[in-house]
Formats: sequence, structure tokens, C-alpha cells
Amino acid sequence: MSNQQLDQLRSQLEEVNLQLLNLINKRGELVKDIGQIKEKQGMNRFDPVRERVMFDQISQHNDGPFEDSTVIHLFKEIFKAGLELQQDDHRKALLV
Amino acid sequence: MSNQQLDQLRSQLEEVNLQLLNLINKRGELVKDIGQIKEKQGMNRFDPVRERVMFDQISQHNDGPFEDSTVIHLFKEIFKAGLELQQDDHRKALLV
Repeated sequence: MSNQQLDQLRSQLEEVNLQLLNLINKRGELVKDIGQIKEKQGMNRFDPVRERVMFDQISQHNDGPFEDSTVIHLFKEIFKAGLELQQDDHRKALLV
Repeated sequence: MSNQQLDQLRSQLEEVNLQLLNLINKRGELVKDIGQIKEKQGMNRFDPVRERVMFDQISQHNDGPFEDSTVIHLFKEIFKAGLELQQDDHRKALLV
């Protein structure tokens, strides 16, 4: 009985992993598009004020079980990965 | 025109952030439930083989734009946060 429950929870977990993967990559595409527009307009890619606004939104919407600090730590890593993606894109554009 | 496009992409980004937040917390709930079942069965919470299987699944389903290594790095942080949540739960159970 409990093993069946465990299997069920594990398959739900695997599904959530793949949904997270899709969203992380969707976010990556959006961040690339934003980077390209900013590049054309000569704007700086990194905008600490916008990032602060996003962190505040995330904390305000966080209902747990994760603490705000944990969630913010995870999003910092996600944001950093997005910024690196924009930088790769910029380097490739320079090489064309 | 481009500013309107930028605003649109930014609001999509904010929406994706909140969807990610929901999924991260949903994953947290599942991991807590799994931890409680394992606890009752006297099983070890950390299972490196299961973790390896999940990493392989994630890499196999990764269509980018993020590299596998970036995605795996992000999931390592997410998994670690989940494990910490189970440990907190375990400590609280001991205090009851």
C-alpha cells in the first residue's frame, strides 16, 4: 500500500521535474529575446532594479513550503543562468 | 514599438517566474510527502540512485536553450533544497 503510494508520488515528482525543465527553458528563450532587444537599443543587459522587483514579486507570492530565502536563492541561480545565456548570445553575435 | 515588445516580454517573464515558483513549491510538497513515507518505512531519505535516474531523465528531455550542464546545476540546487526540507520535517517530528 505504502509502496504504491511512494511510486505514485515519485511519478508525480518526475512529471514536475519535466514541467520545471520546460519552464526553465521557456524562461531562457524569453531572456534571450529580451537581451536581443536591449542589445539593439544599446541598453545594459543586467538591470539590478528589475531584478529586485522580480525578487519582491516572488517573495510576495511565496506560500511555501519553501522559505523565502530558499526560493530567492534558487531564483538567483536561475537568473544567473539566464544572464550567461544572454552573454553567450552576445559573443556569438560579435563573431558573425 | 520595441519598447512595447520589451514590456510584453517582461510581463511574460514575470508570469513564468510565478509559474516556476508554484512548481518549485509543488515539488517541495511532494518531496515532504515522500520523506514522511520513507521515514515510516525506516528508509534513507537520500537515494543517490534515484537522483541519478532523475538527472538522466532531465538531460534526455532537455531541448535547450540551456545546456545540460546548466540545467543539471539548477536541478542540483532544487534537489538540495528539497532534501533540506525533509530534514527540517524530520527534526520537527523528533521535537513533537
